[in-house]
Order: sequence, then C-alpha cells, then structure tokens
Amino acid sequence: MRQSSGVSCQSSIVNRQSVDILILNGWVLTVDSRDTLIENGAVAISGDRIVEVGTEDALTASYRATKTIDARGGIIMPGLVNTHTHAAMSLFRGMADDLPLTSWLNDYIFKAEARWLNPESVYAGTLLSCGEMLLSGTTTFCDGYFFEDAVAAAVQESGMRAILAQGIVDFPAPGVPEPNDNVAEAVRFIETWKGKTQLVTPGLFCHSPYTCSEKTLREARKVSDQAGLLFQIHVAETETEVKEIEQRHGTSPVQYLDRIGVLNAKTLLVHAIWVNEADIACMARRGVAVSVATESEMKLASGVAPVPEFLKKGLAVGLGTDGSASNNNLDMFQEMDTAAKLHKVKTLDPTVLNARQVLALATRSGAEAIGLGKQIGLLEAGKKADLIIIDTHKPHLTPLYDPVSHLVYAASGNDVRDVIIDGRLVVRDRALLTIKIEAVMEEVQRLARQIAS
Amino acid sequence: MRQSSGVSCQSSIVNRQSVDILILNGWVLTVDSRDTLIENGAVAISGDRIVEVGTEDALTASYRATKTIDARGGIIMPGLVNTHTHAAMSLFRGMADDLPLTSWLNDYIFKAEARWLNPESVYAGTLLSCGEMLLSGTTTFCDGYFFEDAVAAAVQESGMRAILAQGIVDFPAPGVPEPNDNVAEAVRFIETWKGKTQLVTPGLFCHSPYTCSEKTLREARKVSDQAGLLFQIHVAETETEVKEIEQRHGTSPVQYLDRIGVLNAKTLLVHAIWVNEADIACMARRGVAVSVATESEMKLASGVAPVPEFLKKGLAVGLGTDGSASNNNLDMFQEMDTAAKLHKVKTLDPTVLNARQVLALATRSGAEAIGLGKQIGLLEAGKKADLIIIDTHKPHLTPLYDPVSHLVYAASGNDVRDVIIDGRLVVRDRALLTIKIEAVMEEVQRLARQIAS
Repeated sequence: MRQSSGVSCQSSIVNRQSVDILILNGWVLTVDSRDTLIENGAVAISGDRIVEVGTEDALTASYRATKTIDARGGIIMPGLVNTHTHAAMSLFRGMADDLPLTSWLNDYIFKAEARWLNPESVYAGTLLSCGEMLLSGTTTFCDGYFFEDAVAAAVQESGMRAILAQGIVDFPAPGVPEPNDNVAEAVRFIETWKGKTQLVTPGLFCHSPYTCSEKTLREARKVSDQAGLLFQIHVAETETEVKEIEQRHGTSPVQYLDRIGVLNAKTLLVHAIWVNEADIACMARRGVAVSVATESEMKLASGVAPVPEFLKKGLAVGLGTDGSASNNNLDMFQEMDTAAKLHKVKTLDPTVLNARQVLALATRSGAEAIGLGKQIGLLEAGKKADLIIIDTHKPHLTPLYDPVSHLVYAASGNDVRDVIIDGRLVVRDRALLTIKIEAVMEEVQRLARQIAS
Repeated sequence: MRQSSGVSCQSSIVNRQSVDILILNGWVLTVDSRDTLIENGAVAISGDRIVEVGTEDALTASYRATKTIDARGGIIMPGLVNTHTHAAMSLFRGMADDLPLTSWLNDYIFKAEARWLNPESVYAGTLLSCGEMLLSGTTTFCDGYFFEDAVAAAVQESGMRAILAQGIVDFPAPGVPEPNDNVAEAVRFIETWKGKTQLVTPGLFCHSPYTCSEKTLREARKVSDQAGLLFQIHVAETETEVKEIEQRHGTSPVQYLDRIGVLNAKTLLVHAIWVNEADIACMARRGVAVSVATESEMKLASGVAPVPEFLKKGLAVGLGTDGSASNNNLDMFQEMDTAAKLHKVKTLDPTVLNARQVLALATRSGAEAIGLGKQIGLLEAGKKADLIIIDTHKPHLTPLYDPVSHLVYAASGNDVRDVIIDGRLVVRDRALLTIKIEAVMEEVQRLARQIAS
C-alpha cells in the first residue's frame, strides 16, 4: 500500500515493501530527459537496482529499509561517468607539465611507461585513481591502457563500474613487446573478463589512426563487432595528426576511419577536436559517440572540440578527465565547470552549453556514449543503483537557488559525501569503504620516488 | 646562536630566540623571484611578521616558539591574493546563469541589488565570502561594491586583509540614490577607514568608462592620487564596450582613460580583455596593473585577456575570481588551473603560462598589482605573516613530484588546512576561528529565500 504524502501510519507500516536502502531528505536530481527535480525527495534501492524515485513522503509510506541514509538536505543524483581516462597514469601525475606535446610524450611519458609499468605498478596506480574517482563522485569510468588485467583487478577491488580495454598500438608496448600480438592480447583480455563480473565490461582500445595500421584497426573492429563491445580510439586530437593522416591517406582522420569501416554505433571517438563539417556529418551518420576531455585537451594545448555542434547533430557526448598526468586530477565536477565555461568563451555566447546540458553530459549522455545508457546515467526505477549524495551545507554552496547551477559552477569533487554503486555503499561520509587508501598512497609514493630518481 | 642543521642541543636551546609561531615539517614555497623551494622547511613568525624562512633544522636550532604548527609534510606558502571580487555577491550565487550579459545584469543582478542590498545583507554576504575565501586559502582580496562600510566591518571580523572601495557609478546605486554624491560617498568611506586598522586599506573603484563620466573619473583619480590609494576600474570587458567607447570618444577604452589622465602606477585595470597592441603599450608606459578574472570572464563569455602579452611587457598581473554570482565560487586554486589551461589552448602552446608563472600571479604578482607588494605575496623575513598550509596527503595529490604542479593543476581550495594572516591563526584544521560560519550560512540562506520569492 502506498500513499503519496503525509506521515506513514501504523497500518501502512505493516504493509510497506522491504528494500535494502532508502535515501531520504535530499533534492533528487534524476537527470532524466525532463530534468526532473524532486524537493524533499527519496530513492529506494533493492539489490543492485533502483526500485523507486519520488518524494520522501511517498517513499517512506511505501517502503521500509534495512538501511536508511539521510542526505541532510543535500543533492541525490546519478554517479558521474568518466568516459575517458588512463587510470594508472596517476603514477606520473605532475611528473612533467607545460611541455610541447612531443617532448612530454617522447621524453617523459613513453620513457616512464616503458621503464616503470608492470602489473604491480598499474594495479597500484589504478587503485589510487579509483579512490580519487570515488571520492569525487565518479561511479563509472572508461579506461584504455596496458597491463589491463591489473586495471581490472583494481577496479574489482574498488567496487567501481568500468569499461576496460587493453591498449592496441603498432609498436612495442608495455607488456606487449611484439606488436603483431597486440590484437590477440586484447582478445585474450576480453575473453578473460567478458561476463566475469557485473561491473567490469571489456572493450577495445586502438590508440589512434596514426599509431595503428589499417589492418590492425580492421581486426580490432571485427573483434568489437563480433563480441558486441565498445571500440574506443583517440582521433583528431591535434592539427599535426590531421595533416599526417591527410598526407598518408588523402582524407581526414574521421573519414579515413569511416572508409576502412571502423565507424559504427559501438564506437567512441576520443577528443575529435580537429574535425570539419563533413567529419561531423559522417560521425552523425554512423551514430558514433564522442568523449571530450576538456581540461587535458586545454593543458596539452590540443584545441577545443566543437561540442555544441556535436549536440546539434544528436551525437552522444560524454566528458572524460583523460589520465591524471595531463589534467592533473580526475575531478569530473571541475570537468563540467570548465567545459561549460570554455565553450561560452570560445563562442562568446553565454547561453551555449548550459548547466543542465553539461550535467547530462557527465551522467546520462556519458553513459550512452560508452554503451551503458540502458543501465546507468539517470535515476529511475529499474536502473542500476549508481548514485551519489552531495553535501551542500558548505560556504561555497550557500545560498542554494538551483542545485544544477551549484553542481556545475560551484561544487567540486570534495563535496561528494556518499557513493553507492550497484546498490553497494562504497563511500560513506567521505570514507572509502572498499580501498585501503593509506596503503595505496604509500605504495604509489614509493614507486614515484623510484621513478623520479 | 644559530646552527644550520642537526638536532638542537641543550646549549642552543637556552640561547634560542623567542618567536610566536614556528611552522615545521613542510615544503616551503617562498614564491620569491627565484622560486625557492625548501624541502623540510620551516617559517618563524613573531607578531605580524615573518622572522625567518629556512630549513627545519636551522630554524628549530635558532628559535623557540610559543606555538608550533606541524605541516605534516604538506606545503607552506604565501596566502593567495584575490585581486578582484565583489564579496557580497555571494547573495546571488547561482540565482541566474547561462544568460546573455545584458539580460543577466539588467533582468537579474541589477534588480536584485536594487531590491535586496542593504548594510545587513551586504555584511552577511561578505562574511560568507570571507569564510569561503579563508577556507580556500585566500588571505587578501580586493573588493569594490556598495554599502562598503558593511563590507569593511565583515572583513574586520574575519581577520582578512583587503583593499576595499565604495563603488562609483553615474546612476542611482544601492545606498547612493543621488549620483552626484558618488565620489563624495567614496571619499567618506576612505576617511572612515584610512589608517583605522592594519588590515583594511581603502581604495577607489569606478565601475567602468561607460558608466562613469569623464568628470567623475577625473575626480576619483584626483582623490586616489592625493590619498595615495589604489584606483580600480573595469575596462575593455566586452567587444560592445569597446565599440561604445570608440563611438563616444573616438578611441579605445584604455586610451580614452589615458587621455583623461586616469592611468598611472596606482591603477588596477580589471578584465582588460579587448585591448590592442597600442593599448598594451600604453598600459606598460603608465605602469598600470591588471586583474584578470578568468573563470568569470569565461562564464559571461566576455573573452580572453592577453595575459602572456601583459607579462612580456612587464605589467603586474593578478588573478581574481570576480563575484561568486558569475564564477560561481571564490576558489583561487581553480582560478590558477583554468588560467594556465585557457592560455595554453588559446595559443595552442603548452609552454605558455607555466605553473610557476601562474602561482606567482596568484601571490606575489597579485600583491604587487594591488599595491601591497612590499608587505605580502611571498615568504621572506620582514614580510607580513600571511601564509597557508596545504595538506598534500590526499589521493588526488599523490604522488608528489613537484609541489608547484600540484598547487596549480591538481589541488583545490579544499586542500588548504591552516591559514595565518598578519601573524594570526584564522583557520586551523579547516575550522574557521574568526567567523561563526553556521550562523552566517543560515542568515544568507534566509535572505536567499526572500530574494527567490
């Protein structure tokens, strides 16, 4: 028996449905397509699913819960979806900044990766990043790197949801010294992890059209299509890349990928900065999704992706942090803020990418972009229970006229209080429940001392 | 008796000089012109001044302190200097976003200011902002607004250092219904506050060349020159302003101000976005300083100030947050991060505005820009003791290769642990010691409910 309002009476208590968790006393931002905001809202969770979203009055009348969480007037919202990162690169955070891209990559990052990546360091770096992401409200991320089995092990331990892919490049890579084995290694990773857990979904990650041959790209695409898994690729990241691809293949990176059959609806193009109108039309035609990593793209001086044009064409766009060696943190709140502001100043139009649109990019649209739109990204009955509670009782979030404005323009990851993933509480009052973060920080700092020396 | 290293022995203890505060066990970033970084550093403070900066070994051998503060391996650095804000505008934070500038100002901000500003609301809004600034590591700010006596009262209560100015515009303003009284009201404010306290320094603030007549600007400049006080003015903020001034006066806003004698070394030009080469040359010739409010300028889609060019010409440049109605927070760490990244992506050059340069803008150079360069902005013997301690023992600040990189690219205001201003501890372990922030938040939220209704 349900009642839509009022205090539950004795007769209703006996008839109330049992749920595992009831979150009460918050502004519920569902981030559905109607931007539903429920003041004095509540969410009921059973197992790994959301059972109902509604007013506190209605839900307390309908449900009794094993565990009740008081949001204390804060914001209850979907967990953030980081559509592009290399989690283990926390190992190199702040090791090298403010350098030309080629020097940063060739003189620092590639050398450090070749020397210091191994399953143990990748595991430690990933676990650190999972801790950082959880504490800043990210519940799902999409990763591509090397020693990806170690990434998957860390993700499992953290309790996060993730799309993980073993990196494919046509030169000797950490853990894959023989480039001819690169696709086979990615296939082995997929076979190991497909269906193994609820939370880890494997995918494919070809580094770029300039580091992978046509043969490699076609093979990886084929694997992706046969297994029904996401195919990620960095593309059109710099002007230099566009010139190189045009010289080699006589067309733009996006249209080159299309010509060789790489673009379809299970494709996530990462960056897509240097794209022209024909490229965008092609992307829309193929139904590809895009991940923009605004802060990293700014820091590396790559350029600004035409996000408003992507949205006009109906592309699914997600936000990503990229690795923390080029950001240098994994805070998706800062990513929302910067994305909104950058496009306003680029177009000299303050109405471009409003707060509601940007919040959707970091949640619902990001989930769609990585192929998880049916499971996560918004709060509604039947969706996986991935949600976060924001503590708004802080000077920088006072006063509160509009929760969405605060989330995009005033909050930071540090305002996240609780995190639930797949119905499981993984952060409570800013304490990580799944990761022994002190030990992880100590281990990564120990590795960094070796790397620096 | 001093010793440069080693544990102090009994004989040195008896000869050690007494100081009030000794901060130990941190990376000391002096932000002096040589970017001095002292590992295992310490700072000795007596009264309102820094007595010595050096290694922990040297300072523990030389001084015994009434109070010892353990930085626990974090960063000890100068407090941040916010060179432009309207502190009381926290009252309107998140009230209206994503709007064309004219609609935002005319339909929301000006109306709300006319209806809701009074000494009590300005006091409450300012005190809230002081709490927010202190908790995010800002020790000094430069403000221009209305009912500035109430601002000064709040600043005094907070223990912050500030340059405060009563706003001058040639139309009826909150608290100054008769525009003819605007300069007289500013003079009255100066007379009330000049020399009254160590921490509050009055100044002049003319709103802009398009809202103040030549007569008003000349009068205000004269007052500023006679009293030796900073003259602030918004200038060249939008393309529209430039066109309007060119139509009215036949030249650019900067050169118009120069022609009427407004520009000299005691001048802070705020924004200075739409300036040409001749303007910059003129600014350099007159020795004016500039405040850039990157995040606010992005959010309002005003444009990007040519900061690298300003620096090449040797101008003193500071960073500012602007009011929190157009930012929407007062976090100077985010301001550093965004400024560094924005100029890189604008120029497509990742070496532009490196982390060291940006950190200087937010401290030493900002202090110079508002005329306090002799007192604050870096850590050295004799300077006022305005400093902050950053807690780096956090996942997003791990590992630590380079403290400066973390401060600019990875940290946020929330990582500030302790704040000392003028030798007085005002934040300890993230607790505000001068402001009853719960009551202030409640009052501002109460006001916001009225404003929203």
